[in-house]
Amino acid sequence: MQDFLERLTGFIASTESYEEADTVIIGIPMDFTVSFRPGTRTGPQQIRTVSFGIEEYSFYTNKDLRDFAFFDGGDIALPFGNVTKSLDIIEQVANKIIKDNKFGIYLGGEHLVSWPLIKAYSDKYTDLAVLHFDAHADLRENYIGEVNSHATVIRKVCEKIGGKNVYQFGIRSGDKLEYDYGQKHTNMFVNQILEPLENVIKILGERPVYITLDIDVVDPAFAPGTGTPEPGGCTSREIIEAVLAMGILNIVGMDIVEVSPINDPSDRTAILAAKLVREAILSYTKPKKG
Amino acid sequence: MQDFLERLTGFIASTESYEEADTVIIGIPMDFTVSFRPGTRTGPQQIRTVSFGIEEYSFYTNKDLRDFAFFDGGDIALPFGNVTKSLDIIEQVANKIIKDNKFGIYLGGEHLVSWPLIKAYSDKYTDLAVLHFDAHADLRENYIGEVNSHATVIRKVCEKIGGKNVYQFGIRSGDKLEYDYGQKHTNMFVNQILEPLENVIKILGERPVYITLDIDVVDPAFAPGTGTPEPGGCTSREIIEAVLAMGILNIVGMDIVEVSPINDPSDRTAILAAKLVREAILSYTKPKKG
Amino acid sequence: MQDFLERLTGFIASTESYEEADTVIIGIPMDFTVSFRPGTRTGPQQIRTVSFGIEEYSFYTNKDLRDFAFFDGGDIALPFGNVTKSLDIIEQVANKIIKDNKFGIYLGGEHLVSWPLIKAYSDKYTDLAVLHFDAHADLRENYIGEVNSHATVIRKVCEKIGGKNVYQFGIRSGDKLEYDYGQKHTNMFVNQILEPLENVIKILGERPVYITLDIDVVDPAFAPGTGTPEPGGCTSREIIEAVLAMGILNIVGMDIVEVSPINDPSDRTAILAAKLVREAILSYTKPKKG
Amino acid sequence: MQDFLERLTGFIASTESYEEADTVIIGIPMDFTVSFRPGTRTGPQQIRTVSFGIEEYSFYTNKDLRDFAFFDGGDIALPFGNVTKSLDIIEQVANKIIKDNKFGIYLGGEHLVSWPLIKAYSDKYTDLAVLHFDAHADLRENYIGEVNSHATVIRKVCEKIGGKNVYQFGIRSGDKLEYDYGQKHTNMFVNQILEPLENVIKILGERPVYITLDIDVVDPAFAPGTGTPEPGGCTSREIIEAVLAMGILNIVGMDIVEVSPINDPSDRTAILAAKLVREAILSYTKPKKG
Amino acid sequence: MQDFLERLTGFIASTESYEEADTVIIGIPMDFTVSFRPGTRTGPQQIRTVSFGIEEYSFYTNKDLRDFAFFDGGDIALPFGNVTKSLDIIEQVANKIIKDNKFGIYLGGEHLVSWPLIKAYSDKYTDLAVLHFDAHADLRENYIGEVNSHATVIRKVCEKIGGKNVYQFGIRSGDKLEYDYGQKHTNMFVNQILEPLENVIKILGERPVYITLDIDVVDPAFAPGTGTPEPGGCTSREIIEAVLAMGILNIVGMDIVEVSPINDPSDRTAILAAKLVREAILSYTKPKKG
Amino acid sequence: MQDFLERLTGFIASTESYEEADTVIIGIPMDFTVSFRPGTRTGPQQIRTVSFGIEEYSFYTNKDLRDFAFFDGGDIALPFGNVTKSLDIIEQVANKIIKDNKFGIYLGGEHLVSWPLIKAYSDKYTDLAVLHFDAHADLRENYIGEVNSHATVIRKVCEKIGGKNVYQFGIRSGDKLEYDYGQKHTNMFVNQILEPLENVIKILGERPVYITLDIDVVDPAFAPGTGTPEPGGCTSREIIEAVLAMGILNIVGMDIVEVSPINDPSDRTAILAAKLVREAILSYTKPKKG
Repeated sequence: MQDFLERLTGFIASTESYEEADTVIIGIPMDFTVSFRPGTRTGPQQIRTVSFGIEEYSFYTNKDLRDFAFFDGGDIALPFGNVTKSLDIIEQVANKIIKDNKFGIYLGGEHLVSWPLIKAYSDKYTDLAVLHFDAHADLRENYIGEVNSHATVIRKVCEKIGGKNVYQFGIRSGDKLEYDYGQKHTNMFVNQILEPLENVIKILGERPVYITLDIDVVDPAFAPGTGTPEPGGCTSREIIEAVLAMGILNIVGMDIVEVSPINDPSDRTAILAAKLVREAILSYTKPKKG
Repeated sequence: MQDFLERLTGFIASTESYEEADTVIIGIPMDFTVSFRPGTRTGPQQIRTVSFGIEEYSFYTNKDLRDFAFFDGGDIALPFGNVTKSLDIIEQVANKIIKDNKFGIYLGGEHLVSWPLIKAYSDKYTDLAVLHFDAHADLRENYIGEVNSHATVIRKVCEKIGGKNVYQFGIRSGDKLEYDYGQKHTNMFVNQILEPLENVIKILGERPVYITLDIDVVDPAFAPGTGTPEPGGCTSREIIEAVLAMGILNIVGMDIVEVSPINDPSDRTAILAAKLVREAILSYTKPKKG
Repeated sequence: MQDFLERLTGFIASTESYEEADTVIIGIPMDFTVSFRPGTRTGPQQIRTVSFGIEEYSFYTNKDLRDFAFFDGGDIALPFGNVTKSLDIIEQVANKIIKDNKFGIYLGGEHLVSWPLIKAYSDKYTDLAVLHFDAHADLRENYIGEVNSHATVIRKVCEKIGGKNVYQFGIRSGDKLEYDYGQKHTNMFVNQILEPLENVIKILGERPVYITLDIDVVDPAFAPGTGTPEPGGCTSREIIEAVLAMGILNIVGMDIVEVSPINDPSDRTAILAAKLVREAILSYTKPKKG
Repeated sequence: MQDFLERLTGFIASTESYEEADTVIIGIPMDFTVSFRPGTRTGPQQIRTVSFGIEEYSFYTNKDLRDFAFFDGGDIALPFGNVTKSLDIIEQVANKIIKDNKFGIYLGGEHLVSWPLIKAYSDKYTDLAVLHFDAHADLRENYIGEVNSHATVIRKVCEKIGGKNVYQFGIRSGDKLEYDYGQKHTNMFVNQILEPLENVIKILGERPVYITLDIDVVDPAFAPGTGTPEPGGCTSREIIEAVLAMGILNIVGMDIVEVSPINDPSDRTAILAAKLVREAILSYTKPKKG
Repeated sequence: MQDFLERLTGFIASTESYEEADTVIIGIPMDFTVSFRPGTRTGPQQIRTVSFGIEEYSFYTNKDLRDFAFFDGGDIALPFGNVTKSLDIIEQVANKIIKDNKFGIYLGGEHLVSWPLIKAYSDKYTDLAVLHFDAHADLRENYIGEVNSHATVIRKVCEKIGGKNVYQFGIRSGDKLEYDYGQKHTNMFVNQILEPLENVIKILGERPVYITLDIDVVDPAFAPGTGTPEPGGCTSREIIEAVLAMGILNIVGMDIVEVSPINDPSDRTAILAAKLVREAILSYTKPKKG
Repeated sequence: MQDFLERLTGFIASTESYEEADTVIIGIPMDFTVSFRPGTRTGPQQIRTVSFGIEEYSFYTNKDLRDFAFFDGGDIALPFGNVTKSLDIIEQVANKIIKDNKFGIYLGGEHLVSWPLIKAYSDKYTDLAVLHFDAHADLRENYIGEVNSHATVIRKVCEKIGGKNVYQFGIRSGDKLEYDYGQKHTNMFVNQILEPLENVIKILGERPVYITLDIDVVDPAFAPGTGTPEPGGCTSREIIEAVLAMGILNIVGMDIVEVSPINDPSDRTAILAAKLVREAILSYTKPKKG
């Protein structure tokens, strides 16, 4: 009977075995510290659902997902409302994936989830560079008194690995202190992506790189399904190009965060995220042997 | 790592093994013959998704789904647009479940899916009675020339098992020929459910019974997510009571059809369907041994 | 080629000739004086569109729309924003329909459109009684200074034909002056419909009656698509029963107003209105001869 | 110029002075511990916005909000994601209102906000009784390990004031342990509201009473805008009747929680809540002195 | 009375007579073979409705629709669910329009409707070239076993008229076999429109050309209302330019397909389609004489 | 207690005192003359609400709203449906703001509100130039007989101050008479913004300038929440650039109109408008002293 049935249990073309997989997709349905509009907790599941509306094959790279061994681990079961415990669990999951030598693609959820992820990767890779695509600088020291917030996440990263190892693209919003901090401590490219990225790629060479991509770096015309839309961003073509361009780097981990399906009845935000996941697997990892 | 992860792969509390299951849930994402508004193809998947918003335990029956062995087989992979082949596949799935001696709960999809299901069950149970809950009589001979249609399904059932074995509840729409056919050949209860049901239950005794429940029997206030809403129906309380009342019958199979998530941003239609699935498992099947 | 084509140009089963029609449906897409949420201007068109989701035949009356000659005149072309001129045009249309001896069913639009309609009918029928179904009393003298408002319409009617000839059902909202005016001058039945209606029907006997039905008399659970939803109303079953019960009266004209499609993604409000239009034609008018 | 302008800064007819007010409305935009669908954080603001769609005057009580002195304090500024600190702030606000001898009406937000509120009121009133209207028992000891959760709130109340002082109405969902706890320790009325309420009112006499009303006690047909809709609830008429019936009790505080505007494009859930707020002020507090 | 009334029976400025028309618009509400999201069946009707939100006059061409004789034939009445019969009827309609020497503009519906259309046109014009605008290659041999599918439509065209006569623009999705087929047999321009179009226009000269335009060639930011949105497409300006640029070709027929109103609450997809229809009439046909 | 509470009573960072403010924001919730889709009456309030999702600080200008003294006066209370009286009130408000020597930013509402505004400003500034950003020419003499209409507003302006003082950018829709009028009498730049704006800025020098910005000048991909979306417009980046570029002019007043929240579930239209308001304050006015 199985011939007739299909159970949509993960991203399109994902395989059934964690052990044999080279890449692992993990959903992180956390959205408790957001201040404006919650909803990103359903992001990872919607990205999976709509992944069946795109193809396994990519016209951009002439490669096919079915030639790659990747496992979709589902969503992390989080204690809703408990930030500290949630961050701790996320870090443990990342450490396990790093230890098992697999490429991790993490789907948010709010941007704060990137903090335990990058913490884990920077513990492993001491010369880690972080490429940060976002509309918002996320460089606050605290947000309404909270140090763990979607608005402080990159500041915490800077304090851990040094701002000079952080490259920020597409930034167009934040407060003055963030702007000044960015000017002084990080490599912040305001309202720009592809141009500076070309140079950064040259500079980075073989260094291990972690990509954290907040979907709101894209203009809300192309990605309306997000918690804090900020007009004036890039197009879907530009972000696809950026993801492809980074294919020559030594990417060791990646997250795509802040997809909020409830604000996008057309689902094009989740579809764009699914497409970026596909291109990332095809560009940053190797096909299975055989 | 599995401790942290959860993969939402089926109805809440469903088990992993088809073989050990007493009950099987099957989704049938077919909506190609509908004339007014398509959308029921995503019904089964949405019923699964929202089942995590209700509890495993029922206050109505004081029983818990976790004490029952039921498997969620996912959706049947249908050749979209090919009606004949689709009906054939559905019938094969039903036959397999009947042969394996499991209780089948089928989730539509459009009402036409009930035709191959009831055909299979009536082949097995020669004295089958069909209890039909619906706003529409579905007794047309053909619909715009097509004999296979959501509007002809019960007529086909009548022609197979005899109209006198068909009991129709809550009917409030149809054309004159359907009304006359119902008056003459079936047991049609116009605009009524609980009152006539009480008598029918007494009459049926130990006979094998198949339930086909079109969610639009419920008023669109309570179940707006359906293709052809018809004001003037029953409340959610009444349909829950009806499902519970049939617990003393010998139910051999059941479907719930015409849930169309896109027309219901509150998801209460899918949640009602999920609740009916839960009560059906708790009331029509036995808990696992041991 | 016409055999293959269908042009949805009016209410289901409406005929092509104004001259030969006994009944005329007119849409009045006016919503400029509303204070809370506009949107009723698309009401008439949506009622037509969804009328194809109900049947021509009625299980309630055992009659079929195809046996009745009724014409759908489309929407009145109004000068948007010009209240005075709009009311004048509406009155002219009503006078024409009265003069041509046809039964008029008018679809709003906001409730103010009932004023020129009732004015026209009361000029023709000097002993006219008005049956008013609504959540709101609509008895204000003026609304933020405007005498022509959706909130003053029944007060104007009272001043024209005398409050004692006005019967108000289902009323549950208004200001204190409206409440007091209703208690003193009209026949106002607070939060009640079917019970008092039975008596009123007996009292009215053969008098000419005009029905003005604001869809918000129904609870927003059953009719969410309206400008000023007021919880605590009747069910769809009750309003259907009320419309059927008035079939023994001498109804000379009728309007159904305040259907606002944009607030109801399930379209059940427009479908309910379409069903009331169908039952009104079947109950208040005669089938074609022959 | 002020004559021309209006600033919608609070609930309809609310006054400008906290000091002179007898009643205070406080919004609590917390929704971080919810497990199914977030969104109640915008509940309080939406209740204010739609309050302008209802009247100041009530047909039910023949009273007018403009005769009452009540202040709308806006929303509490919470540290998003920090549950402990948020609960602490909420309790401080409640204590201040109690100390200032004002009647507090609190608008959620998720149900967990009721815990610090009831804690504050039970500290002040040692013989406090709590009337709990809800679809869910909320009697869990912990929820996925968290003791502070929307699903544990009434259990915490029971542990503080004793389950025998807690009266639960309309309950129809929970797990078996909650059901058993309710049967043993609280006064739980499953699927019932008005009938048992009548008796409870008699029993309570002059005791101080706090009302906690989760809007999902109402059927999702009437209140679809809520996080965890549970079919099979009461109508809007019944909840209005219940609120009115409690007018003879000694109500010392009240909350209405779990209104989630994003799931209800018709806004009838927020409108129902606004209407309950109006009736509560008119029924539970005294008009200003003349 | 007619002066006051307007009946929205077709595209803005369409005329009443088929016989006197030079151009005919036909809606084809078929969406039964779609695999991802149904809904295009209401596309043609919505394009008509929103056409009243654009002007008859075009700033791009300095021409006015009112100077052109075009008839809107409404939607073809299809036997829902019967693919073979539907395709047959569509072909008959196209043949009739060709025989009557009128320019046909066909509005989908799903892309499969283009197959019988192009079949009819290629029977008439033996040297027909097809210009195909789409995000998807639609070059599959079969789709889940079905040869008649929205995903096979251009493959069938290629097999009929030869791939070298097919020009594909904006393609960015498909499987590897489609990509290879396109590279080998058709003129496929991946991710490009205006640049290659310029050359193609030169090459085609006076040859008869049929345009099939799947609205998803446009980025979902500009056209979210479609069944299978594919990020990375062109802007609305680019597609308008493309339609205008083809004005110097010998266009003999045209379709615009896959507009799915339910996925676009802003209606901008249908409005864009209506604008393309207007520009097509103004650019590809001649004004009426006289 | 005030420390815990926040009342969202105006645009982010607006101050409490009209008297001390240099700039005043006024909402004008008028949408009665619109012909296609009403809904702009809630525009101003939604722009305020979403302003809390952007920052007070601007990356574009390196300035912060908190350094500017601006007051949000709320919405003008209009007599709904009474156009003449409404226009009169709007003009009085503008005159008051001009007389009090404050910079006015007016938020619509429909475009007709710009007529009394510009009338007031041109009475004060006799050499006023008007910069008009819009998809539509709005140069009709009357619209369905009405001279006061959203489609006639710029014509009325031209008749008051002379078309040669009116500069129109981004225009891409209108009827032939409007096109001809624009060609002859105004400075109309069809489908262009930034290029011609550069020249116009040079020409204007120190002249007093009033900006009227219809949000539909932006493509509906970026601003779908508007009454009459017109594909083919500019991006959000371009309109931001345009607003910034005008910072060197002598701007004396400004309006942003036609934001219609109901058509944009992502709220990006209102967010774009809020961002333009922020940049206007930062670029066109001076920070507070001290």
